[in-house]
Amino acid sequence: MSTGWTPYDIEKESMEIVEGYLDNYSFMPLEKEIVKRVIHSTADPSLAENLVFNLREFSPDPAACLPLGLNIYTDVNMLKAGISRKLLEKYEGSVHCSIDNPVVAQLAKQKEITRAAAAFYHYAENLDGALVAIGNSPTALFALLDLVDKEIARPLLVVGIPVGFVGAAESKELLSDYRHLPYVTLSGNRGGSPVAAAVVNALLRYG
Amino acid sequence: MSTGWTPYDIEKESMEIVEGYLDNYSFMPLEKEIVKRVIHSTADPSLAENLVFNLREFSPDPAACLPLGLNIYTDVNMLKAGISRKLLEKYEGSVHCSIDNPVVAQLAKQKEITRAAAAFYHYAENLDGALVAIGNSPTALFALLDLVDKEIARPLLVVGIPVGFVGAAESKELLSDYRHLPYVTLSGNRGGSPVAAAVVNALLRYG
Repeated sequence: MSTGWTPYDIEKESMEIVEGYLDNYSFMPLEKEIVKRVIHSTADPSLAENLVFNLREFSPDPAACLPLGLNIYTDVNMLKAGISRKLLEKYEGSVHCSIDNPVVAQLAKQKEITRAAAAFYHYAENLDGALVAIGNSPTALFALLDLVDKEIARPLLVVGIPVGFVGAAESKELLSDYRHLPYVTLSGNRGGSPVAAAVVNALLRYG
Repeated sequence: MSTGWTPYDIEKESMEIVEGYLDNYSFMPLEKEIVKRVIHSTADPSLAENLVFNLREFSPDPAACLPLGLNIYTDVNMLKAGISRKLLEKYEGSVHCSIDNPVVAQLAKQKEITRAAAAFYHYAENLDGALVAIGNSPTALFALLDLVDKEIARPLLVVGIPVGFVGAAESKELLSDYRHLPYVTLSGNRGGSPVAAAVVNALLRYG
C-alpha cells in the first residue's frame, strides 16, 4: 500500500468489494447502481438496508427523465460540493445552494426557522421540475414537502437524506408517504451529504 | 414536528440525546467535545468507539495551540465546505483545497497518483504549522505521511479520517503510529467529510 496506487486501481478493487455486499439483495438495476455508489462512498454496507426508493418513473431509462439544463437544489454547501461537475456537464446542469444568501438569512431570522428551511421557501416555484437534494437538514425537507402540499413546487425527484437525532427520521418517514413524488430516502437517523451526493451522482452517471 | 422548530431547539434537544450516548465512556474534556460533535453530525453513536486521539499537546488549552492566521489544508471540496467560516473568523484563518488546481491535475497524471495525493505533494512545505484535514482520500494521507517522513512538512495537527474499502483503514493505522504528531483519526473503513469537518469544527469551537 502506498501513494503509488492509481485512482483506477482503487476504484476497481473497491467496486469489487462493494459488489460482494450486494449478493443478498434483489434491487432493480437503477436502485442497485445507487446502492453501490452509497456503499462505495461511505464504506458502510449497513446503509443498504435503509435505502428506500420510489423510482418507477425513472426505471428503466433514467436518461429520459433528467432534462438538459437540469437544476439541482441542495440544502447545504457540503452537498453542493459533493455533486460531480463532470457528470453534470452531460446535462448542462447547475447546482444551487442558497444557505449563505443574505435574503435567506433574513427570512430565517424573521420566521424563526433554520436557514436551510428558509432557503427552500426562497426557492419556491423554482423547484418545479428540479432535482432536490437534501443531505443535512430535516427542516429543509419539511419545508419542501410543505411547498409540495401547497402545490407551489413540483420537483422532478427528491433525494431526501437528512441526518440527525431530531426530526430527520420523521421527515424521511413523511417523504416515504408521497407515492406520487419520485424519491430516494434512507430510513432512520443516519444520512448526510456523502450519502445524498452518492445518490445524485449515481443518477447522473446512469441517467 | 414541523418547519417551525427553531435552530436553537434542534441543537439543544440533539445535544441532550448525544450526551446520553457518552455516559459509558471516559474521555478527556477536549476529546469529549470532539466525540459529541462527531455523533451530533452523523447521528451514529457507534463511531465513538473508533475515534483515536493523540492530543496531549492540545489539552487542556487548545486555544494556545491554534495560532492566529491558522491555515487548514483539506483533501476534498466537501470537507472544505463543511468547515465553519464563522468559527474560523476567531483565528483569522483560511481553508485551502487544491484538488481542482490544473497544476495538481497535471502532477497527478504525470505520477499516476490520485489528484488528492498530488495536492499534498503540491502543498509540501506549506503544510508546516498547518492543520491538515483529510476526509476522503487514503492516498492523500499516505502522501502527507511521506512528506512528514522526509521532514518536508511538519503539520501542527492532522485530522486523518479518510473513508473506503481500499487503503483507508491501513492509512489510518499508519497515522496512529506517529506518536510525535498530534492527530485525530477513526479506525476502520468508515470516515468521511462530515466526520472530519465535525472534528475540525470542534477544535475551532473549543480552541
